[in-house]
This record gives sequence, structure tokens and C-alpha cells, in this order.
Amino acid sequence: MRMYDLILKKRNGGKLTKEEIEFFVKGVTDKTIELYHASALMMAIYFRGMDEEETLNLTLAMAESGEKMDLSLIDGIKVDKHSTGGVGDKTSLAVVPIVAACGVKVAKMSGRGLGHTGGTIDKLESIKGFDTSVEPEKFFDIVNTHGLCIAGQSMNLAPADKELYALRDVTATVDNVSLIASSIMSKKLASGSDCILLDVKVGSGAFMKTKAEAEKLAHEMVKIGNGAGRKTVAFITDMDKPLGNAIGNSVEVIEAIETLKGNGPEDFTLLTKTLSAELLRMAGVENPEEKVEKVISNGKALEKLALMVKSQGGDENYIYNASLFEKAKYTREIVAGEDGFISHMNAETVGVACAKLGAGREKKGDSIDFTAGIYLFKKTGDKVFKGEKIAEMYASDENKFTEAEKTFLSAIEYGATAPEIVSLIMGKIE
Amino acid sequence: MRMYDLILKKRNGGKLTKEEIEFFVKGVTDKTIELYHASALMMAIYFRGMDEEETLNLTLAMAESGEKMDLSLIDGIKVDKHSTGGVGDKTSLAVVPIVAACGVKVAKMSGRGLGHTGGTIDKLESIKGFDTSVEPEKFFDIVNTHGLCIAGQSMNLAPADKELYALRDVTATVDNVSLIASSIMSKKLASGSDCILLDVKVGSGAFMKTKAEAEKLAHEMVKIGNGAGRKTVAFITDMDKPLGNAIGNSVEVIEAIETLKGNGPEDFTLLTKTLSAELLRMAGVENPEEKVEKVISNGKALEKLALMVKSQGGDENYIYNASLFEKAKYTREIVAGEDGFISHMNAETVGVACAKLGAGREKKGDSIDFTAGIYLFKKTGDKVFKGEKIAEMYASDENKFTEAEKTFLSAIEYGATAPEIVSLIMGKIE
Repeated sequence: MRMYDLILKKRNGGKLTKEEIEFFVKGVTDKTIELYHASALMMAIYFRGMDEEETLNLTLAMAESGEKMDLSLIDGIKVDKHSTGGVGDKTSLAVVPIVAACGVKVAKMSGRGLGHTGGTIDKLESIKGFDTSVEPEKFFDIVNTHGLCIAGQSMNLAPADKELYALRDVTATVDNVSLIASSIMSKKLASGSDCILLDVKVGSGAFMKTKAEAEKLAHEMVKIGNGAGRKTVAFITDMDKPLGNAIGNSVEVIEAIETLKGNGPEDFTLLTKTLSAELLRMAGVENPEEKVEKVISNGKALEKLALMVKSQGGDENYIYNASLFEKAKYTREIVAGEDGFISHMNAETVGVACAKLGAGREKKGDSIDFTAGIYLFKKTGDKVFKGEKIAEMYASDENKFTEAEKTFLSAIEYGATAPEIVSLIMGKIE
Repeated sequence: MRMYDLILKKRNGGKLTKEEIEFFVKGVTDKTIELYHASALMMAIYFRGMDEEETLNLTLAMAESGEKMDLSLIDGIKVDKHSTGGVGDKTSLAVVPIVAACGVKVAKMSGRGLGHTGGTIDKLESIKGFDTSVEPEKFFDIVNTHGLCIAGQSMNLAPADKELYALRDVTATVDNVSLIASSIMSKKLASGSDCILLDVKVGSGAFMKTKAEAEKLAHEMVKIGNGAGRKTVAFITDMDKPLGNAIGNSVEVIEAIETLKGNGPEDFTLLTKTLSAELLRMAGVENPEEKVEKVISNGKALEKLALMVKSQGGDENYIYNASLFEKAKYTREIVAGEDGFISHMNAETVGVACAKLGAGREKKGDSIDFTAGIYLFKKTGDKVFKGEKIAEMYASDENKFTEAEKTFLSAIEYGATAPEIVSLIMGKIE
């Protein structure tokens, strides 16, 4: 088999066979394929696309390319959730404890990632002592005992995807829906859960800018998941404005804790409850909505989070006393520049402002400022008066405020009348 | 400037600026650009194409990427011809002496190439002593004295094209008309002639399989040449059947010599005269057709070839006595398998048969058997009787005949009635 023939076939609109795709993925994994062959094939796929079968075969081959989590050591049905990412997205921090409190196990591997803030495991590290580098044995043990664990990826899951994504990232072949779907799903399949719930974000703060694109991606991922024998469902949810009020690391953990107490912001609470209930439904739990309400009102969900924190070496008191979280040295108040309604708040720009405060990392290995972040008092649709406080910014270095504030203000548009508000839950695909 | 941005722009259908193209070509030349970037860009260009200006800029940048022939040391107008290649194409061997005999100078650099037979300079090396590795000074001297020289490429002309072509060749991005045009024309521009005549072949033995494709390529090349300030004309000529009767190396030289004596096959004679007259016309010579006829009938063209051979160290007696050429050790007669007309003779397949006899090289540095080849007694349109001799094959190893004959016979189709014959000269673009 020759890469030339695969490239030519795809370039001419042909369909790659299972064997051809496996040959390619194996070559990418063991680095016997030239990168110039791989990048040419990726560009041909960008233009020609892949059909359902090709996409599934690529995903399966990448999922098989390295180690796989064997969750059979954990009893019962294991569920997993994945978000395509957005600004203020701390959903896992609230959903995982709720689901575990309802008796369904979540063995969650999470990445650090690059972005406006840290990833889920970075955020958790703002709790003193919390250790996300859990060895597989201990990981299984914690899940078996408490029903939940959120750990960093210590295993070599889907290395072919890692290689290929790095190449796509520098050759302008990322934004193809089949390639995105297979990249996400290869890692999810290798992570071993029985049920996979996908939260596909859409809007200014998401990778997918339109609902149509998000639906297409969701459809592809659901088909792959089901094709691979995992129960898979996707929600399409709004990410045109930031999710919740807190954007950063420790501020997001605090917001998730408040939500588990029943005091979270309306939008984030709705999303948390919706996703939690769906995960329970997928795992075969009856009356999932009721159960979710119950573990919030009776404090069981919060307790689960505290148990997880403790079992991963963290100080559980943080969960019950938010004042223990380290505070940023400096706070800056941001006020409205006009009277009227906030007609739009560009979520991505808000994210960039947050990154400028030090909450994210630019490249692998950069340190993160857990205390940096933004808290929104007003969001899209809210009526404001000129000079009224709409947000607070937090930073360890006062000099960072100037640029961050400029960026933040550029994210906001005002209007004389209330804008039409998009539903947070835009669709469900199964 | 970043390759990522160039790739993204082209992928999205944008137009690359002169500066971007020059950045890319420079990076290809000095190898500071990653090949995976270059192959992704080539694939994006394959799908999106390049407009006239981009194609000209790419060609100029590649022409400037290395050494350039400075033909100003040669007096008068210098002309050059280029064929896109075919089977039995020995046209330069006849055209160059005719044009020189008419007083127009031809300083021709030629490649060895890979193919069914050797390239022009390989064919010439079947003349004892003929040396194609001529240093620039001697090259200029021979052209100034005799008006013609055909030498191998000793200079580093258009190295960016060489690099890029090698990459395109293995990543299925060769067959894009703008890329083909700029590849050919970059070398022609760097070769320095004032006038460039292109012979774009079309049909089963050519790279371009349809007239429409060939016309497109011809148009692009003519635009580039004229855009770069060189007088450029292209002919579209038939290569659906082999050109002339001889295919190989020494057999082709002998056929070219016969043609210079006025005894060549009809098709090859027509093409030779047409291209020669056009080159003279481009150089401003009046009554070019008459002059071509004259130098053939008075032996001046043949004399020019002998002078060139002598000045390049070859034995000029070969030109006047074909029996001096080394003969193949073995001859195999090929006969018609049916009564009827030869309705089609696939030129490429005939070429492959010739390669199987040992007339070409598979990879750089392979040796060539000058004596191997095929002589056609019958071609497309000829009436034949079952058992009648239609061709002879020549080889140094009798074992090669079996496979070669099988291949040759598979090239031939018979019909009950005479097929429609395509004109050899199918069009002219200027």
C-alpha cells in the first residue's frame, strides 16, 4: 500500500477502505509515514470529505492506536461527557458530582488544554492539595468507592489523533467536520465509557459559529459513537455569551460549588441539570430530573464533590468554605459605557480578556494564575445604566488590567431595546 | 509571514500575493519551509487553482530561484522549443538543425528525464563520442560559431521547481494546469531564450488526454511566457499514436536524420517543418516555410547537425552513414493478429513496450540501451492482413521480447473500417 495512491484516490473523490485508513493511522502512529504525505491527505479530505463509514473507520483506528482505558474493573455503567469547549464552561465540575450522587459512575479523564482559562483539571488544582495525576489503579479504586474521579490523561490514549491534530493545526486542515468528529470521538472511545454525552457549543465563544455547523458535527459524533457500540447523545447549546457569570479558574470552581448548593446562575444551572439528567437517562435511571433536583437540595451532590476532592488529596473544606480559595491581589471594577441593553457580549473576546489577566496558558507548560478571572454582573439582554458595574476583573498584576479591560469592553454592544434571547438548549441529537 | 496563513488563504479560495509566493519559493529553495506545509499548499492549489497573476508570479519566482543562462553572450535572437513529451518524439533532433541552417540560433538545454525512452540528450549519446556535458563557455562558443548546441543541464536552473516537482510527484498534486505550466515555464525562462515555442501533446501517449486540457495548458504557458516578456507560441499536436515510425534511442536519431534528408515519415516531417517554420517566423525571418524546404533539399540542415555533432565531440560520419550506429543483437518481428484496419494504437502502451525492451530508465542513474526500440511498419488507420508484419522490436536480451510483445499487442485495436484520422496539428495558440 502506498500513501500516494490513498492521496490520489481521496483527491479524486474516492472512498478510502478500512484497510487503507488503518494503514495510514498505523503509519502516523509509528511515524513511518512522511508528514508531507499526511498533510496532503488531510487537505484532500478537507475538500472531498469522508463518508460515515470512512469517518467511523478513522475514529476506530485512532482509538486503537495506543493504550485504552479498561473500565471493566469498575462495576456498573460508566458514563462520560464531553464539551466542545467555550468560555465559562465549568459544567463537568457540577455534572460529575450530581451524576455520581445519583448512583451512576463517572470515570473522567480530562485535558489541560490551551485556552482562555485552564481546562477542567487546571481549575480543580485551585483547590489546595488536589492531585489530578492519578495512577490507573487508584483511579479505578476511587471510582469504585465514590462513583467519580476526574484525572489528567496519564495514559497514551489515541496517539495517532495527537500526531494528526498537531499536523492539522499547522496546515489549516482543522475545520473539517469529519476530522473534528473523529478526533474527539477517538479519545472518548479510548477512554472506555459505556455512554457518551456530547455538549456541542455554538456561537461567538465556540468553535462552531452556526447552529447548522454544530448540528452537523453533533450528528457525525453521535453516528460514530453509536457505530462503535457506545450509547451516544449530543446537545447543541448556546455559547454566544459566556456560560454562567464566572470565567477563570478558582472563580469557576466556586460557581460550580454554588450551583451544587442550588445557588448557581440560571443558565449554568439549567445546563448542569439538563446534562446530568440525560446522563442518568442514558444509564437507565428512572425519573432522572427528580433525582437531580433531590441530590442538589439534600446536599448529596456537594458531598460527592467533597469526597472526590478528599480522595484525590485535596482539602475538602474548600467545598464548604469558598473563602479558603486564594484571592487575586487586585480587583478592577468595569462599568457600562452607555445606558441601554447589552445587545451582544462576544464570548470569545471575553475569553481573550480573561487570558490577558493570566487565567490561561499560551503554550504547553506555561503556568496558570488560578486567581485571575472575570465575574459578570450583567450579561446579554440585561438593562444597564451608564457607570453601573457590569463586571469585576481579578489579576495578580495590576498592569494587566488596562489591556484586558479594553478587550472586555470591545466585546460588548449596546442597544436601545432588549435583544432577542436565544435558548440555552438549542437541540438534542441522538 | 507564516506558511499557515498562505495555506489557509488558498484553501479558502483567496489569492496569494507576489510577496507570499516569493516567500514560499524562497523557503522551498533554501529548505526553510517544512515539506508538510508545501504539500498542503500544493493540494489547496490543486483544488482552488491559481489565477493568471499568481501563476506568473510563481513561475517568475521559480525561474529566479537559481542560476540563469545569460544568452547575451550569443549574438542575435535565440529561440527555444519545448515538447510536453510523447512517444517517438524526436522533434528537437530535426528542428534544431533546420532552424540553425536558416540562420536562427538555438541554444538548447535538455534533460535526460525518465520515460519510455531516453530524453533528447540520451538519444544523441547513441552517436559515438557525442558529449552532452558542455561547459557554459564552450556552449556559447558553439552556438556563436555554428548556430546550435544541444547540451545537458549543467547549471542549477530553477531549483525551486525541482524541489517542488519532486514533492508534487509523490503527493498526487502534479496534474494541475497552473502548476504544470509554471514548472515548465520556470525552466524555459531561466534558460534565457528570446522566443519559446511549445509543442503541447494530446492523446493516449501524452500527459494531456484531451484537447481541452491541452489547450488550457497551452494558454497558461503562452500567457506566462508573454507575461515574462518572451515571445511565446504553442501548438497543440496529436500524440494519440506514436510520432513517426521509430521509438527508442538510436532508431529515433536515424529517423531524424532521414527526415533532414527529406525521407522522413509523413507525420514527423509535417511536425518538424511546422515547428521549424514557426520558430523562424517568431525570430522575424521572412518566408519561413520556403526556407525550411530549402535547407532540407540542399542538405544544409543535415550539415548543421553534422557540425553540431562534431563540435560536441561526436563522430559526424554517423550523420551520413546510419550503418555506423550500433545495432541491437536481437530483432523480433511482430505481425497483425487480425485482418482489418488498425483502429487505435495506444501510444503510451507502445512506449511501455519500448521501456520493457530496455530503451528507457526507471530511475535516475539507470543505464539506457541505445539499440533497443520499436520500428512501426503500420500505424493507426493502416489496413493490415493477419500475419502481416506491423512492427519490429529490437533488444540486447532476447528474453525481453515476450513481455514487450504482449504489451505492444495490447496497444492495438482492429476494426472493419478505416478509423477517422485526427489531424496531427490540432491547433495553435499565441
